[in-house]
Amino acid sequence: MSRRACTFALLALSAAGLSRSQELTERYKPIADKLIDAALADDEGYKRLEYLCYRIGNRLSGSESLQRAIAWSVEQMKAVGLTNVRVIPTKVPHWVRGAESARMVAPVDKPLHMLGLGMSIGTPPGGLTADVVAVSSFDELMALGAGKVKGRIVVYNYVFQGYGPARGYRSGGASRAAALGAVAVLVRSATPLSMQIPHTGAMEYDEKQPKIPAAAVSPEDAAMLQSLYRDGVPVRVHLEMGARTEPDVDSGDVIGEIRGKSRPEEVVVIGGHIDSWDVGQGAQDDGASIMACLEALALIHKLGLQPERTLRVAFWVNEENGGRGGEAYREFVGDKLNNQVAALEMDGGAEAPLGFGAGVDQDSQKLLQQVAKLLDRIGAGEITAGGGGEDIAPLIRDGVPGLSERTVGTHYFDWHHTEADTLDKVSPGDFRKNVAALAVMSYALADMPQRLTAPAGGRRGGPGQ
Amino acid sequence: MSRRACTFALLALSAAGLSRSQELTERYKPIADKLIDAALADDEGYKRLEYLCYRIGNRLSGSESLQRAIAWSVEQMKAVGLTNVRVIPTKVPHWVRGAESARMVAPVDKPLHMLGLGMSIGTPPGGLTADVVAVSSFDELMALGAGKVKGRIVVYNYVFQGYGPARGYRSGGASRAAALGAVAVLVRSATPLSMQIPHTGAMEYDEKQPKIPAAAVSPEDAAMLQSLYRDGVPVRVHLEMGARTEPDVDSGDVIGEIRGKSRPEEVVVIGGHIDSWDVGQGAQDDGASIMACLEALALIHKLGLQPERTLRVAFWVNEENGGRGGEAYREFVGDKLNNQVAALEMDGGAEAPLGFGAGVDQDSQKLLQQVAKLLDRIGAGEITAGGGGEDIAPLIRDGVPGLSERTVGTHYFDWHHTEADTLDKVSPGDFRKNVAALAVMSYALADMPQRLTAPAGGRRGGPGQ
Repeated sequence: MSRRACTFALLALSAAGLSRSQELTERYKPIADKLIDAALADDEGYKRLEYLCYRIGNRLSGSESLQRAIAWSVEQMKAVGLTNVRVIPTKVPHWVRGAESARMVAPVDKPLHMLGLGMSIGTPPGGLTADVVAVSSFDELMALGAGKVKGRIVVYNYVFQGYGPARGYRSGGASRAAALGAVAVLVRSATPLSMQIPHTGAMEYDEKQPKIPAAAVSPEDAAMLQSLYRDGVPVRVHLEMGARTEPDVDSGDVIGEIRGKSRPEEVVVIGGHIDSWDVGQGAQDDGASIMACLEALALIHKLGLQPERTLRVAFWVNEENGGRGGEAYREFVGDKLNNQVAALEMDGGAEAPLGFGAGVDQDSQKLLQQVAKLLDRIGAGEITAGGGGEDIAPLIRDGVPGLSERTVGTHYFDWHHTEADTLDKVSPGDFRKNVAALAVMSYALADMPQRLTAPAGGRRGGPGQ
Repeated sequence: MSRRACTFALLALSAAGLSRSQELTERYKPIADKLIDAALADDEGYKRLEYLCYRIGNRLSGSESLQRAIAWSVEQMKAVGLTNVRVIPTKVPHWVRGAESARMVAPVDKPLHMLGLGMSIGTPPGGLTADVVAVSSFDELMALGAGKVKGRIVVYNYVFQGYGPARGYRSGGASRAAALGAVAVLVRSATPLSMQIPHTGAMEYDEKQPKIPAAAVSPEDAAMLQSLYRDGVPVRVHLEMGARTEPDVDSGDVIGEIRGKSRPEEVVVIGGHIDSWDVGQGAQDDGASIMACLEALALIHKLGLQPERTLRVAFWVNEENGGRGGEAYREFVGDKLNNQVAALEMDGGAEAPLGFGAGVDQDSQKLLQQVAKLLDRIGAGEITAGGGGEDIAPLIRDGVPGLSERTVGTHYFDWHHTEADTLDKVSPGDFRKNVAALAVMSYALADMPQRLTAPAGGRRGGPGQ
């Protein structure tokens, strides 16, 4: 082959490669632009979110307001023209906070800013009063040993270095302290922002240890208690929690669909969780996500678009304190797992979207990048690794390619699990961009010729593949 | 004169001018550097602030904790070696918050995040329930008129555009609404930050109008109530406030001095206010200021420095809801007003210092700039116009040159008058810089040959000048 021919061949190859690498971008550009334009002009989605936040409010599993939210969601899905709208039933835990309070009673009397942790037991009636020991880490706790911990309330005032490590203290702190004889724990709230507001969240008991009450305190209170303790000042706290777990309650996931044109049995599911903690309005966590997912499908339907596969929206239940909705959805899918083409969860708030995390192999990642390129105009064109989500974890565990919507996340953990997770935190402009990103990505996933592939080792068996 | 001689003369003049413009800078450089070095290495001031915040806590006029703070302050001033330590007695108002709460009861039942405004009356026992009207401004309120306001609770949800305008709604909103027949007001908290935390503060009644209860609500709640009202949804609120004003209580300003070497009768006074609202710890408002002022004098004394004039630190009382401490101090000065050489108030928190605002004439401003130049190394070298302060207002009114310490003020109004005004908000590094700035400026003011002059028109009479 002459050098010239060789150059020509290479160019041709490169052009073909280029063409392949832009295939999905080109294919979906007109539809994506229509969807983005519609999303950026849309008011209906945010209005629905406003109703959810202001007229229904927070939605803890087992609560009456969750049941209202579920019934209302069914109506909303039908109203926007989705088909096969139904509730996938499941029992959910029914943890009830009850009346609760905490006070520092020595060296001076001061109310503490607390929120019981989800699934904690309560205190005895009338509460309990005990001296405090304060630690920055589990290592410090172990170094104190049972001699100094027994009969005390343990305060965890770790340095916040991200939600993951913080959750470790929230989740496991009670049983670790109980193992040394502590009578209760107060855990610094899992947040970078100190605004005297406690953040609740789930905790778990190690069944081998005695169960003791566990509450979050504001970062300020955790710092104060530890500072006094370190100065050698005897610190006593009175803690009163009426928390209890009642029998499971009937509840369910809400789903609705745009039926696929040629392969309706194949499903792309996108969604978030409908339940929230019992504080604030569950606006960023996770009301905005479910309303954005619904609006994405509503706009696809409104524009008369119908993808090849079925596109399903799911409002999973009980993400916060049990994960029963995700498990129920997995059971609902049953042995048709191979028909679950992709599962996309949005559970990181609705600040400005960046793109998607995806638990897929390299070839699939390239396909996703071709689609994401269409979202560059709204700043949401990034595809990164990742792609998990509490509710889709049972699907991912069994090999379904999982995606998650990603945002800048600038303030998410300021508001998360607090009274401040309210509608005003969701910018209408950012919300619309999330709708746009979800609409384009989910439409393409449901319509494109290719299927995504989970990374090798991601599919760890599971029934009926 | 030859051109050369002329040039020489001009140069000489210029050099003399330069020298004059640097006179104070050069004179106080060695002392300033010593003071700054000492302040930046100091731990005692912050330790004292920690005690005030964690061991005494908030200090509302009339409260027992204020009395503890006053007694403790006398001890502290003596302990650092100040002389003439004493309490200038004054009666202070005794407003008591009592139990309080607010709930939205329609369209859904939700607790509101409220704090009664200082000096408000309470509700009748058992509270009051009424429909809500919501406005963004006094103009909107007037446009509604008595027909729509009578018997209602008025919600003010103005757009926050700085503390000044916001304070207008907090201070005057009750009587403006009462004039139209409103039964209570809920006022958006005066803050740029929405973290579901209400900010209290003083309100005032127009004696010509009926007195109605007034409370602050979080920005989130104000927005929600207004949004529902604007959507035509009937909104009802139940408000319960046990607020009451009890008889005046004996209290006082705490002062202490470094006696002047050659002109002890001439006084430079620096300080802040010892009282706070009854929430949080009064850390930024104004505990850090009084502790920084005290530490400035403590370091001057510790370094064996004695200025020509007397340098006095004042912890004025009742700045927040009455201003009795400032008036008592003015009476204490009596007809010796001309001996009050300068009054410096710090009441904007202890974030990183920028310098000082000064209500002085142009020549005096230049003198201050020569001193402030010594603070460039800690970023606090700015002299700007201004210089007010609630506590020194009676002195300024009568012609005393007034200064105020200025900081970046980035987060001050996030924390101001809330449960979140706590020790952790005061950075030890920033606190030390404030001590340094106060030490250098107050020493120079008390020692320099010149006196400052209030601007023309600033001295509006007053006894015994």
